[in-house]
Amino acid sequence: MKDLTKEIFTMLFLLTDARYLLRTHKFHEGGRYLPRGELMRILVEIKESLKRVEDIIERDDYLDVGGMDIVEGLEVRTIEEEYININPIQVGGRLTPEAMKAIIAYADGYSVCDWCLKPFRLDRIRRPQLERFHKELAEFIGMREARLVPGARRGFQAVINSVARDGIVVVSSLAHYTEYLAAEEAGAKVYEIPVGENNIIRPENLEEKITEIKRKMGEEPDLVIVDHVDYQYGNLHPIRDLSRVAHEHGIPVLCNCAYTLGIMPVDGRKLEVDFIVGSGHKSFSSPAPSGILGIGDEYVERVLSGSRIRGDISGRTYPNKETSILGCTLMGCTAVAMMASFPRVKERVRRWGEEVEKANHFCQQFLRIAGNRVLSEMPRRHTLIRVDTRESFDKIARGHKRKGYFLYEELRNRGITGIFPGATRIWKLNTYGLSWDEVRYLSETFIEIAKKYGIEVQ
Amino acid sequence: MKDLTKEIFTMLFLLTDARYLLRTHKFHEGGRYLPRGELMRILVEIKESLKRVEDIIERDDYLDVGGMDIVEGLEVRTIEEEYININPIQVGGRLTPEAMKAIIAYADGYSVCDWCLKPFRLDRIRRPQLERFHKELAEFIGMREARLVPGARRGFQAVINSVARDGIVVVSSLAHYTEYLAAEEAGAKVYEIPVGENNIIRPENLEEKITEIKRKMGEEPDLVIVDHVDYQYGNLHPIRDLSRVAHEHGIPVLCNCAYTLGIMPVDGRKLEVDFIVGSGHKSFSSPAPSGILGIGDEYVERVLSGSRIRGDISGRTYPNKETSILGCTLMGCTAVAMMASFPRVKERVRRWGEEVEKANHFCQQFLRIAGNRVLSEMPRRHTLIRVDTRESFDKIARGHKRKGYFLYEELRNRGITGIFPGATRIWKLNTYGLSWDEVRYLSETFIEIAKKYGIEVQ
Repeated sequence: MKDLTKEIFTMLFLLTDARYLLRTHKFHEGGRYLPRGELMRILVEIKESLKRVEDIIERDDYLDVGGMDIVEGLEVRTIEEEYININPIQVGGRLTPEAMKAIIAYADGYSVCDWCLKPFRLDRIRRPQLERFHKELAEFIGMREARLVPGARRGFQAVINSVARDGIVVVSSLAHYTEYLAAEEAGAKVYEIPVGENNIIRPENLEEKITEIKRKMGEEPDLVIVDHVDYQYGNLHPIRDLSRVAHEHGIPVLCNCAYTLGIMPVDGRKLEVDFIVGSGHKSFSSPAPSGILGIGDEYVERVLSGSRIRGDISGRTYPNKETSILGCTLMGCTAVAMMASFPRVKERVRRWGEEVEKANHFCQQFLRIAGNRVLSEMPRRHTLIRVDTRESFDKIARGHKRKGYFLYEELRNRGITGIFPGATRIWKLNTYGLSWDEVRYLSETFIEIAKKYGIEVQ
Repeated sequence: MKDLTKEIFTMLFLLTDARYLLRTHKFHEGGRYLPRGELMRILVEIKESLKRVEDIIERDDYLDVGGMDIVEGLEVRTIEEEYININPIQVGGRLTPEAMKAIIAYADGYSVCDWCLKPFRLDRIRRPQLERFHKELAEFIGMREARLVPGARRGFQAVINSVARDGIVVVSSLAHYTEYLAAEEAGAKVYEIPVGENNIIRPENLEEKITEIKRKMGEEPDLVIVDHVDYQYGNLHPIRDLSRVAHEHGIPVLCNCAYTLGIMPVDGRKLEVDFIVGSGHKSFSSPAPSGILGIGDEYVERVLSGSRIRGDISGRTYPNKETSILGCTLMGCTAVAMMASFPRVKERVRRWGEEVEKANHFCQQFLRIAGNRVLSEMPRRHTLIRVDTRESFDKIARGHKRKGYFLYEELRNRGITGIFPGATRIWKLNTYGLSWDEVRYLSETFIEIAKKYGIEVQ
């Protein structure tokens, strides 16, 4: 941990202590009072920290000062402050400053329930403006309705339970494990669509699979799940064309936008899909677990139906509670963080083109290293990149005393993290959110490491 | 919003901006550099805020200074800093200062996944020490295994799907709506146990219900769900005796500890139950959505079985991913906040006796007001209290120009919030976490309001 980072956290934590003093000293001997002495002590400590920050700024350099624990065994996480992070799953879920402020302000458990009035539902709360947020979100993704869910997997689960329970679900053979588990949990059978050329799912692959299932099982699938961009190659699949094939068979389509919703344009109507599922912690600058479920016109009633159960003794019913999502979902800082990130998310989606340019710049430079391959489609249409370095870095790893860890460590020593420790064969990185300076530095660093170990660079 | 609160948030947000500067200025023109000018500007603003805080402390009084927005339409929440909050669902989920620090440090989406190694599961991550936390949590609740889930409802869902899918679930007729919805979503039929005397579920009530179901349906229930403390009266139910009845019929028992786990002692072995479900945001000082699922020896394999699905083309399998909880659950600040709150939660559970004393003190004072009734069992064994003020405050409401809102407003004007706006008939409050000073002030305030409106006080 660097000294400047440590001072920032020191002050954030001192202020958290001050805030806790306000919370625990509202009344004393019947009267309101300020915990003067304790507050003064905190003020002094903040001032001392400020002084140290000034020294650091003056010096214009960081010193490593070791870690900092929150409670025993829980260190402060500073990866995003101190490293260029290219972790494939983390880059789209880094919080915006607005979301960070939101989770500070709405930290407490049921923090959005202060003004929960009839019909007592998260998506109808007007203070904070969750109702408006839900409407804007539905519009943003081009769907009729939007709901927040605790992670994309809970979106898959809600849809599968509603339209394919004990049925047949078709997924891509590049699908994420949560699609399989959600189907399994709903008692559905899962079949995979084979990938076509270049690891892209083609409409004919889906057509073929549907035909095969019909022949073998005597019935058509109940749901097709396609990944807008798959997690393995980061390839962009032809969702609209796939959707048209499914629709010709009368099968609804769920588009898994875990890697796209919140970082690149996603419009359910243009994609012609029935369901959109996105991930807050993967691509919407939100804390885990959070996600978005979007539902098209035809399926709103089926997926968002209210509870039909009736207590046999109490007679109680819950028609306003939506069964598939089990009523309210994100009642605190997760929901508010999504709302706080939304303006900046909308803005960054408009800058997606430049993100793709940066990814392509990286690939061009990375491919200058002899033996390096990019396994994702080229040119890149997404920032998630699957590479093959078996003929370059892995050859070094075989003779290195740190084995495959050498690459991870060489990068880490140069301020870059996020590749899987030990990976030198086939692995992934994600350039999303890096500045041009950072992308150039990242590219140059790989070249520098290659040169250090005598790998040819063109 | 009071001036002191505002200054604390101002500084927290300035530091969040400073932190964001570190994150976005790691590299510039190839070299590491500090965003000096911008950091200096923030330092100056913090100093100005510190100066204002000193003035406020000197003055020893708060001034109201209006609200503060995070983004347009999202105001800073200051209820816990500025009011005595007696909201029935919120009091056990207020964050500890450690949890607040944890969510600041682990704000980003997949923040706990930096060191996720084989077998790639949340409960096996060793940095931060989630593996150890899971083990300690299982021990703390007296169960064989513990898992984190996005809210208690997801714990109900996992268990019902595993042991009562399309089956029969028996719940208390005081059960929370999420128990009904989780059963409904799993295709199960729900039957309610009638309440006995004093709104307590008695073993004979359960015995009777099981017999009735067997007679009517030809089969016994697959699962009995009992609420350790119900959400309506806050009554403590005889879980061990109820469990013994269910077990005589070979039926597993899930104990819903949403109002108990994390604030009062809960020991699954002593309760002789097969499943414990708790809520992080309701009773474990954690952000939403978070919860705990505890599983006893006999059901670990059934409920926590790994996925058995196999991709027909890819051949991929996920035996390490637990299907009922859909793999990993809380991958970021929610999980870490629970871990950070744990030491203080353990400590507060030991002080439960005093919390109950305070609740009883409140009831004694509250009952001095003519017409007031406490509908919960007396003496209180929990801090959630259901009261009936139809013969006291509601009589005033009928003639008051603000109708039922008068009571809410009278309390709010005296620094107390959390009762349902407009409620003057049957409503609930929760004294959990109030200091003795605050409990006395709360009691005196009700008496003061009663006197103001000419209600007799004994």
